[in-house]
Amino acid sequence: MNNDLKINIKGNSLPNIPWEDRPSDCKSVIWRSQKNPIIPRDLIPSSNSIFNSAVIPYKGKFAGVFRADNTAREMKIHRGFSDDGFLWEIDNDPIEFICDDTEISKFVYGYDPRVVKLDDKYYVTWCNGYHGPTIGVGYTMDFEHFYQLENAFLPFNRNGVLFPRKINNKYAMLSRPSDNGHTPFGDIFYSESPDMIHWGYHRHVMAPLLISWQSTKVGAGPIPIETNKGWLLIYHGVLTSCNGFVYSMGAAILDLEKPWKILYRTKPYLMSPQKIYECIGDTPNVVFPCSALTDSDTGRIAIYYGAADTVTGLAYTSIDELFEFIKDNSL
Amino acid sequence: MNNDLKINIKGNSLPNIPWEDRPSDCKSVIWRSQKNPIIPRDLIPSSNSIFNSAVIPYKGKFAGVFRADNTAREMKIHRGFSDDGFLWEIDNDPIEFICDDTEISKFVYGYDPRVVKLDDKYYVTWCNGYHGPTIGVGYTMDFEHFYQLENAFLPFNRNGVLFPRKINNKYAMLSRPSDNGHTPFGDIFYSESPDMIHWGYHRHVMAPLLISWQSTKVGAGPIPIETNKGWLLIYHGVLTSCNGFVYSMGAAILDLEKPWKILYRTKPYLMSPQKIYECIGDTPNVVFPCSALTDSDTGRIAIYYGAADTVTGLAYTSIDELFEFIKDNSL
Amino acid sequence: MNNDLKINIKGNSLPNIPWEDRPSDCKSVIWRSQKNPIIPRDLIPSSNSIFNSAVIPYKGKFAGVFRADNTAREMKIHRGFSDDGFLWEIDNDPIEFICDDTEISKFVYGYDPRVVKLDDKYYVTWCNGYHGPTIGVGYTMDFEHFYQLENAFLPFNRNGVLFPRKINNKYAMLSRPSDNGHTPFGDIFYSESPDMIHWGYHRHVMAPLLISWQSTKVGAGPIPIETNKGWLLIYHGVLTSCNGFVYSMGAAILDLEKPWKILYRTKPYLMSPQKIYECIGDTPNVVFPCSALTDSDTGRIAIYYGAADTVTGLAYTSIDELFEFIKDNSL
Amino acid sequence: MNNDLKINIKGNSLPNIPWEDRPSDCKSVIWRSQKNPIIPRDLIPSSNSIFNSAVIPYKGKFAGVFRADNTAREMKIHRGFSDDGFLWEIDNDPIEFICDDTEISKFVYGYDPRVVKLDDKYYVTWCNGYHGPTIGVGYTMDFEHFYQLENAFLPFNRNGVLFPRKINNKYAMLSRPSDNGHTPFGDIFYSESPDMIHWGYHRHVMAPLLISWQSTKVGAGPIPIETNKGWLLIYHGVLTSCNGFVYSMGAAILDLEKPWKILYRTKPYLMSPQKIYECIGDTPNVVFPCSALTDSDTGRIAIYYGAADTVTGLAYTSIDELFEFIKDNSL
Amino acid sequence: MNNDLKINIKGNSLPNIPWEDRPSDCKSVIWRSQKNPIIPRDLIPSSNSIFNSAVIPYKGKFAGVFRADNTAREMKIHRGFSDDGFLWEIDNDPIEFICDDTEISKFVYGYDPRVVKLDDKYYVTWCNGYHGPTIGVGYTMDFEHFYQLENAFLPFNRNGVLFPRKINNKYAMLSRPSDNGHTPFGDIFYSESPDMIHWGYHRHVMAPLLISWQSTKVGAGPIPIETNKGWLLIYHGVLTSCNGFVYSMGAAILDLEKPWKILYRTKPYLMSPQKIYECIGDTPNVVFPCSALTDSDTGRIAIYYGAADTVTGLAYTSIDELFEFIKDNSL
Amino acid sequence: MNNDLKINIKGNSLPNIPWEDRPSDCKSVIWRSQKNPIIPRDLIPSSNSIFNSAVIPYKGKFAGVFRADNTAREMKIHRGFSDDGFLWEIDNDPIEFICDDTEISKFVYGYDPRVVKLDDKYYVTWCNGYHGPTIGVGYTMDFEHFYQLENAFLPFNRNGVLFPRKINNKYAMLSRPSDNGHTPFGDIFYSESPDMIHWGYHRHVMAPLLISWQSTKVGAGPIPIETNKGWLLIYHGVLTSCNGFVYSMGAAILDLEKPWKILYRTKPYLMSPQKIYECIGDTPNVVFPCSALTDSDTGRIAIYYGAADTVTGLAYTSIDELFEFIKDNSL
Repeated sequence: MNNDLKINIKGNSLPNIPWEDRPSDCKSVIWRSQKNPIIPRDLIPSSNSIFNSAVIPYKGKFAGVFRADNTAREMKIHRGFSDDGFLWEIDNDPIEFICDDTEISKFVYGYDPRVVKLDDKYYVTWCNGYHGPTIGVGYTMDFEHFYQLENAFLPFNRNGVLFPRKINNKYAMLSRPSDNGHTPFGDIFYSESPDMIHWGYHRHVMAPLLISWQSTKVGAGPIPIETNKGWLLIYHGVLTSCNGFVYSMGAAILDLEKPWKILYRTKPYLMSPQKIYECIGDTPNVVFPCSALTDSDTGRIAIYYGAADTVTGLAYTSIDELFEFIKDNSL
Repeated sequence: MNNDLKINIKGNSLPNIPWEDRPSDCKSVIWRSQKNPIIPRDLIPSSNSIFNSAVIPYKGKFAGVFRADNTAREMKIHRGFSDDGFLWEIDNDPIEFICDDTEISKFVYGYDPRVVKLDDKYYVTWCNGYHGPTIGVGYTMDFEHFYQLENAFLPFNRNGVLFPRKINNKYAMLSRPSDNGHTPFGDIFYSESPDMIHWGYHRHVMAPLLISWQSTKVGAGPIPIETNKGWLLIYHGVLTSCNGFVYSMGAAILDLEKPWKILYRTKPYLMSPQKIYECIGDTPNVVFPCSALTDSDTGRIAIYYGAADTVTGLAYTSIDELFEFIKDNSL
Repeated sequence: MNNDLKINIKGNSLPNIPWEDRPSDCKSVIWRSQKNPIIPRDLIPSSNSIFNSAVIPYKGKFAGVFRADNTAREMKIHRGFSDDGFLWEIDNDPIEFICDDTEISKFVYGYDPRVVKLDDKYYVTWCNGYHGPTIGVGYTMDFEHFYQLENAFLPFNRNGVLFPRKINNKYAMLSRPSDNGHTPFGDIFYSESPDMIHWGYHRHVMAPLLISWQSTKVGAGPIPIETNKGWLLIYHGVLTSCNGFVYSMGAAILDLEKPWKILYRTKPYLMSPQKIYECIGDTPNVVFPCSALTDSDTGRIAIYYGAADTVTGLAYTSIDELFEFIKDNSL
Repeated sequence: MNNDLKINIKGNSLPNIPWEDRPSDCKSVIWRSQKNPIIPRDLIPSSNSIFNSAVIPYKGKFAGVFRADNTAREMKIHRGFSDDGFLWEIDNDPIEFICDDTEISKFVYGYDPRVVKLDDKYYVTWCNGYHGPTIGVGYTMDFEHFYQLENAFLPFNRNGVLFPRKINNKYAMLSRPSDNGHTPFGDIFYSESPDMIHWGYHRHVMAPLLISWQSTKVGAGPIPIETNKGWLLIYHGVLTSCNGFVYSMGAAILDLEKPWKILYRTKPYLMSPQKIYECIGDTPNVVFPCSALTDSDTGRIAIYYGAADTVTGLAYTSIDELFEFIKDNSL
Repeated sequence: MNNDLKINIKGNSLPNIPWEDRPSDCKSVIWRSQKNPIIPRDLIPSSNSIFNSAVIPYKGKFAGVFRADNTAREMKIHRGFSDDGFLWEIDNDPIEFICDDTEISKFVYGYDPRVVKLDDKYYVTWCNGYHGPTIGVGYTMDFEHFYQLENAFLPFNRNGVLFPRKINNKYAMLSRPSDNGHTPFGDIFYSESPDMIHWGYHRHVMAPLLISWQSTKVGAGPIPIETNKGWLLIYHGVLTSCNGFVYSMGAAILDLEKPWKILYRTKPYLMSPQKIYECIGDTPNVVFPCSALTDSDTGRIAIYYGAADTVTGLAYTSIDELFEFIKDNSL
Repeated sequence: MNNDLKINIKGNSLPNIPWEDRPSDCKSVIWRSQKNPIIPRDLIPSSNSIFNSAVIPYKGKFAGVFRADNTAREMKIHRGFSDDGFLWEIDNDPIEFICDDTEISKFVYGYDPRVVKLDDKYYVTWCNGYHGPTIGVGYTMDFEHFYQLENAFLPFNRNGVLFPRKINNKYAMLSRPSDNGHTPFGDIFYSESPDMIHWGYHRHVMAPLLISWQSTKVGAGPIPIETNKGWLLIYHGVLTSCNGFVYSMGAAILDLEKPWKILYRTKPYLMSPQKIYECIGDTPNVVFPCSALTDSDTGRIAIYYGAADTVTGLAYTSIDELFEFIKDNSL
């Protein structure tokens, strides 16, 4: 890797990326939207909360898949659209995936979705309840019809996140094996697939770190962002405090061809729950990034994150500053 | 049961029921008082918190039994009176029950009381510390002298709630067997007694439900409300989130003669902790109903509930709407 | 209580009580049968194990109710007969209780039965699976037809043991409230009933003791034996070792009219698992008494106990020696 | 499936299958070798214990892969040969797998191996320590050189068992997802692979059953045995007793083309730990089958099983009797 | 002890003690600063939070040692100075202790410091990560150079608090033995040392109390304050609520010469988390006193306490009132 | 350290050391006595079990301190004498330590004693119940009168073992900090004292090792044996199996002047529970060494160890072979 080159995002330009400049009194590398929470818990009639959701540019505007827990506290995935990335229209009813095999189609719950454009399809992955949590996989070509594929892994697994292109000619996914409850441990692994159905070549990527904001478990967040310096992985880490958990956000740079090799990884967190909508809600003290929009022209990055498992927030950074921060504060 | 008949409450009219109309922007079947919390944590000098309490019409006004934890964090039951149901005068000292048998009279703690008029007595039940939590039973005829009876059950039990009339010629009580700690499980059972001393004919009523707001435990709330369609049981359910518990409120309709048979039971919650006084306090994220006033003329229902184990809130609904909601959203 | 009087058993003479004299080299107050285990695990074709069972004199011979776990490891109660108390014929099929109410009749499991003659009936109590373990109650008059009554208590409860006569004009039962698993705690309580259906007047009898063989939990064993000095209660106590539990046997003398008052209670155990059939089996290190035969003429006592949750053993003592031991070694 | 046809094993004849006739006093469908334990814990100088191992016919005699924990209590896989299936010569040093990728080749531990002939290779699967237990896969063609392939699954997984032929044109494996400790839960799943590297099409096969010998977890044992009636799966199930676990052996018949469909499954166990070498050892009360030899001519089956995680035992049955038993005692 | 004498603090006058009079509407014995939190979580660029810290008069102004967790969530001790006790300048980098022995000098973490003037040195104690939490000891003479001494105790220990003078000619320390996690138990013990290196003569001081604000664990807070009536010990106690812990503040009076003898101990708490900055933060519901300034002339006491493990608060009382309260509300 | 020199024990000759030659068919470095268990569980009338005990040469014969749990399962220390080290006479009553300070003299329990001659005194250390387990210290000069000193450490601690001479002019002790239950973790630490009262200079010696016989906890066994090559420390290690714990014996060589530095440490165990009296008893699968006799002339070592927390065994080795084994099998 040529360290002399300036970092740049290998993606499309996105001139309409949602954006607010950093407030003058803010010194941190990531800053929150003044409009937070941009999606309130009751945006749609059926919802108890809307959070841990993912958006993507679509036809010059934006589309997204949203975790909306209803007032029965069932965890469902809903579709939504937005002109500007701030104001969202979300369907009141969850997505119904089309699937031939009834054995897997009637999944018990679906939550924490991610979405990525790969070839000509928009792939969606989520935590899917099939005899325990595992990684559900589906796709849509038009955000009208969604097709469900096979679950990627055996239970118990969460936070399955696809890479936005094939690596070594194969589909690639990060995930976090866990257990059948609210797992108090968790490492990130890498797996490959020739066909989006069968997965193998599992490699260990990242473990929690003692005495840190990421001491209990870690899990991939948004789709990794390709740069000329490596894959930018924004992820969450969890600390067990004297009275519960704290979910924060960090980042790492992964090797482009061997993404299980970590080039840099932030020792400090990028953002921790400090705003009242992050500290209070159905799950206190949670900042949980699931999606990022990027503009390759300006290097701007807009991160959508769940706050307190209740609402959705938006935060900003730019690739130069973030990369600088990651490098300078790497473990 | 004749489904053609309109539902109505089989009780007295209560023209002075505390009431506020539903705010125009509110769409939920239950709405909160604008004066919440109607009882602050420090209403009386000795108290750390006042919550999970029960009120009843009394001599044209209102009387009540209140859980007031003092600043030693001892759990005690206090007496209170109110002219309007909003402003309460609560004794600074706890009730001293009159009891001949010293073996049971010196109970270690008393909390989460309910009160019901049955025949000519006002019966009080509460969680009573006798070698573990069990159901204490007492009565008063004048809210001056309170007499303690035998504990209804063996430990470990909580949330003992009497029916407001005999069923099949016997007293009837709901309760939630538990264990000796902060039990992470709990079903509602029904029991009968010929004499308010000996209890038997135990029947299972309701269990928690996986993947729901009531997935960890359930417990009866206010005294069941008799209607021509069945007993209206407002109850609490608990969900284990990724970072602690969430206590919400739901409702069911029980068969009039066999109250262990559930006719309807809400799949969504009726109300979950969303206001700051429900989300923050000695026990975060708790909405815990213990009492309801009803007016048979108008069908109005005013629900008193503990918030965050710290203060007392008030919420409203009407029997028509609530019944409709329960039926339409039943499991 | 007149301490001058010699202790004697208030019961019938039982000249054919199973008996073996104490071996000359044995010094302990209780000694084992040389024929142990008197009932092997596979006495009947269907059984995985036969243990924690109860016998009673019947028509000049003996009858009994036996816990026989089948090879599916379902816990069932079987009937058996014996001429001499040593050799038993046990039905290969479990008892089918006659019960009108299907709500309680299809119990999930039945184990650890006791049997007592009360008035003209042989009452059987057992641990009964009804939404958790509770105390099943039934009776037979002829060991042909067994009738099931209401469960005595709400779950969770185990080791329900009836007294052999009414006390203060009411039926009386000891039991051990517990939780929904293999409870690592447990005290003995006393309850009364006017009709064998409704139970109340619950009193605490006995708790575990720190740093002792009975430090984890205690539970009543055989039907209490009435003497002129009080009720002789043989019970089990459990210690948590550095590697699992140890179930031993002890005894107490309870007040005749207020059986929740302990007059004496053994500080040492009477018998602990030391023989290989007590140390090895489906549950290692278990001695669990469930029944005792007594002969009022000689003061002989023959104790049937489960060993390692696998087989049934027999041990002997005499009332004089045992009472002396209990008094001299009381807490 | 034509139920009229007699069951027969679809495999080779094995006239030299180890065999002892059923003792005349034995009535159970499976009977133990009189020579048990056929492999003692200290057969080789380095070993603390030899158990949970797998054998296969090889060049007219027998070869095997053995779990031999050394006296450091490291879990290793050793190679062994036998002329008769009773007397084994096991290498004192563990197998060194040949593997190009150092990332996975230095596995922390390898235990509970199975071996199967598939095409022209002898595939070995085992529990492999790669950031947690997962399923290691390797093969040999000559029992001289062993080659390691990719781990089949992400952690945490144990008891990976290959089918002896492709199903629906793909390799097929059973496994038991678990967690990072001595998992107290566990279901059996089915997965497919086109290339023995990438796995998908995961299907749930079997869960534990409440109130049974298989109430805590279940895991596949020997390579499934193909018959004209379905796949015969011998498996282990675990019960949590009042004082530890009990590992027993059961069996099921799986659909030939959809092996995740259970046709029959034994309600009783086939064999539970009852012999002293099964009840006592490094892990008390364990019977753990890992391998079976079959003779299609006679229908004889010889099952190798680990006893108490310490020694290796041998037990026998015949396909007719076993199938009859499974059918007659199915859930 | 002569109870006739008025209580007075045996210390220096501190005319510039930070102070605000009690608000007229406040009735409690301790009242909060209107400026709370006086130290925000981000006072210094590196910090995530600043709390559980200790201050001391120094050269007519104030110096302090502060727990500042950085944004990596490493727990470090920083130095700070203040002119008035309200506004603090805290070093952005942690203190580097000078220590010859590398075995103990590279401690993994340092948190919850206390500071006391003893002879001519300012001793600092803290929770120090040396193969588990233990009590680190160091000193400074000038708040420039800090020297690390031996750890006082073996792990696992927290909340080591020195007395401000020798007792019986030896240094004296309170501490709370614990375990290697977020210990859910904890008593206060007393120990002595002739040389600040070797410690012995361990005495039990105080245990938690059932059914109280201090039911789970207790730990010493500020340096004990010497009075003519005994040592005033302000401490924290923890209650386990239905949804997490609550850390409150209480006080006790210890015997002057035998400080392990408790003369008085508050049954109610002095202060519990009720303000939003105490209820919300990295650890909800925490009030944790670590330091107190006193003025012997006026009897004023200013208590610095950590709030929600996030910020630092200040509260006031006076010795007369506090002593009166403690006496009148003693257990 | 001169590795050329042959190892020899720096101690007295002990020509009457108990001894049996290694059986010809035994290949392990340590071999058991043919007379095992040399002390049965019921050697004295009061005892339930006698184990984890320590002996020492005394006046040409042998004396010892024995853990004898009585039939109340209280843990007590008894005195004993033997002419030959095989046959012991143990007092039926426990030692009564003379102690002026009633605060510490009435200890709740005393177990797992060690004894060492240091200067002119025989020091005894044991696990002492003072508000949790800690290290009791006492001494005798004549095995008639035993004097109790201060507890060495704060709770929670077990397995305190003194060195047989001062190191760096101070008394030295190994111990294993733990928690208040049957701790499932534990490292060995070293501490120093100038006066046998105050202890400090704590150093970490040894932690458990993953995937080994010593993976859960480790604790010092007999008094370290001084040799010209270092201190020979025989210790126990614990593994958590799939069904309980296994306690085995290992050894290490510690640096003579800095005993917290490990020169060698056995990767394999020296001896694990394999005999029936080690596998079965009150605590299955325990080999627990507490004492060793040595003869400097022959290099013989006789190790006394508790078996299954029930009886006492004896095993032999010689210093040359053992040292060779430790060196050749070191981690």
